[in-house]
Amino acid sequence: MTMPAFGQFGLWTFDTVGWISLIAALTNAFNGALLARRPSHYKHFSFAGIIVLGYAGGIGGGIVRDVLVNKIPSPLENPWYLIGCLAVSAVAIFIALYTAMKFQDGLFQFMTAFSLPWYAIVGAQAALAAHLGYAAAILIGVLATTAGRWIIDVSCQCTPLLLTRGGFTILSAALAAATYVVCDAFGLSVVASTAIAFVVGFGFRVTSLMLAWEEWEPWEPAALKAGEKPHEKLGETIKMEL
Amino acid sequence: MTMPAFGQFGLWTFDTVGWISLIAALTNAFNGALLARRPSHYKHFSFAGIIVLGYAGGIGGGIVRDVLVNKIPSPLENPWYLIGCLAVSAVAIFIALYTAMKFQDGLFQFMTAFSLPWYAIVGAQAALAAHLGYAAAILIGVLATTAGRWIIDVSCQCTPLLLTRGGFTILSAALAAATYVVCDAFGLSVVASTAIAFVVGFGFRVTSLMLAWEEWEPWEPAALKAGEKPHEKLGETIKMEL
Amino acid sequence: MTMPAFGQFGLWTFDTVGWISLIAALTNAFNGALLARRPSHYKHFSFAGIIVLGYAGGIGGGIVRDVLVNKIPSPLENPWYLIGCLAVSAVAIFIALYTAMKFQDGLFQFMTAFSLPWYAIVGAQAALAAHLGYAAAILIGVLATTAGRWIIDVSCQCTPLLLTRGGFTILSAALAAATYVVCDAFGLSVVASTAIAFVVGFGFRVTSLMLAWEEWEPWEPAALKAGEKPHEKLGETIKMEL
Repeated sequence: MTMPAFGQFGLWTFDTVGWISLIAALTNAFNGALLARRPSHYKHFSFAGIIVLGYAGGIGGGIVRDVLVNKIPSPLENPWYLIGCLAVSAVAIFIALYTAMKFQDGLFQFMTAFSLPWYAIVGAQAALAAHLGYAAAILIGVLATTAGRWIIDVSCQCTPLLLTRGGFTILSAALAAATYVVCDAFGLSVVASTAIAFVVGFGFRVTSLMLAWEEWEPWEPAALKAGEKPHEKLGETIKMEL
Repeated sequence: MTMPAFGQFGLWTFDTVGWISLIAALTNAFNGALLARRPSHYKHFSFAGIIVLGYAGGIGGGIVRDVLVNKIPSPLENPWYLIGCLAVSAVAIFIALYTAMKFQDGLFQFMTAFSLPWYAIVGAQAALAAHLGYAAAILIGVLATTAGRWIIDVSCQCTPLLLTRGGFTILSAALAAATYVVCDAFGLSVVASTAIAFVVGFGFRVTSLMLAWEEWEPWEPAALKAGEKPHEKLGETIKMEL
Repeated sequence: MTMPAFGQFGLWTFDTVGWISLIAALTNAFNGALLARRPSHYKHFSFAGIIVLGYAGGIGGGIVRDVLVNKIPSPLENPWYLIGCLAVSAVAIFIALYTAMKFQDGLFQFMTAFSLPWYAIVGAQAALAAHLGYAAAILIGVLATTAGRWIIDVSCQCTPLLLTRGGFTILSAALAAATYVVCDAFGLSVVASTAIAFVVGFGFRVTSLMLAWEEWEPWEPAALKAGEKPHEKLGETIKMEL
């Protein structure tokens, strides 16, 4: 059996889209491993389990994206995704050890915003490359952005962030993907389109955090008990902390 | 880059199977959004979150079906699925607002029964179109029927309906898919096969609700404590309400 | 419409890899149905629900493996997987009835170890057959091994075993897959490679249980309360029982 040589996967073989996809995986893996150590999510995971969660957060979006456009997932084929995700997950574990919880919160919020647009961009790219149309590009961008976090939240028995007031996850991802699609339609290069889409997605998310915007949550169903723990509003928490 | 024109996806381009697939998505999306607002499932979702759950319930089955037969999922490619699911989810949210909970229960039970057979039918169709054999047709029908609800239940931290006494979900879906396969084998048209399979699947489900049939649940494991909250039997609840 | 005859799927048509894949499905289905009846996982499932969980545990790994290498999942195509999984799930339900809980624990631990290496082996095989390289072979082996159990754990609202101290699930699966890859690279036959990989994976898992090795779990986050239920260590439980 002829096997692909490792050199076939050398870092010099990455094209622009490949690099963006790797950045998406590594930022989300770092974030996933940080998340696994937070009290809201931590469930006595082993070291291997935390690294698996980081890896799931990192490549979950890439696997969903490639399965949806009917390709073998590049994060499985290319060993650099595994090596990189292991490395950043290990870094995240040690940062969680050597820093106070307060710094972690800030770092975590920043990383959540920073890691968000990348998968929206590569998801839109993958859909356009497969000639799937504008709606599909935005949808696959949103699905790729939210898939990794959904897997982590469900594995940690938490309500998935994308469904609750979580800093406009879906809107930020859709904005980044739509911006990429528009830039691409105007003939901009991959690098320029990616830069603009990143600024839009990241900028909207950070602005919403800074100004403590809240997503619109509907009235409580009457059946919920009055004695229930009141729901924490992210915006109010941030306002108090500022 | 040449992009597909939107006209390529005009409603006039839908064939019979396409319409049935769209009906499957819309009925399940309506149901999913209603479900997200029920006290058993509601977890302080944002408006965007409820619409995402409706969308997940609506196209989850179609994505699973197409991934399993190794195609790019049509609910992602075709923008009408997104537009339609958004619309019916919004309608469901306003129905949940303007109606009393009791009407909701009845509407919800009816919609659960009404939306069930469609994905069983299109799942079986897709498997037959891919020349996968009878067993695969029924299996993919059952998987497509239950996938959307499984995603919603797991996201809402509820025990998946298909695993508990839930009005014979699996049996109803398998009956509808098997009926479609038999009709197809006898050479009936898509419309006729679909109509018969729908009547069988919907009829069985409604009959089981009306007559308060219960699925067979095994004896309790001895280790479960005596003081535990007794399990609610759907049939007994319906009997009391009748 | 020409339909595949059932004879096309006769047991005599199974090649060596097909048999190993069927063994993987059946051992994991047996295990899944046993698991669904354990107090940690049981959630008032119906009989159909327990069989669905057995089936999910049995073919979940095979579906994930084939979707990742971009093929139609053989456990859906071939009716013997369905027939076999139904049979072993039914056997597991009756064993759970007619045996004391203590025997069940021993049987369950043994079956967990026994069923583990098979999907690692067929996952690695499938990746090598698709010319995906060594890293992909080990990754797909680990994903195929853990997918079924992840689906069951998430459906039963339990923390997924692969993330916690669970007898080195990930390491055992990676060892079995890596052993298969090495044997294959040295030109050994499928049967010989499978036998050696099984002995390594199963042997490591059983040894770790016998010697009560524990996976490395990181320090508790400071935010976890002191009054919290102490985490049960598998190794200590086994040491007490020995």
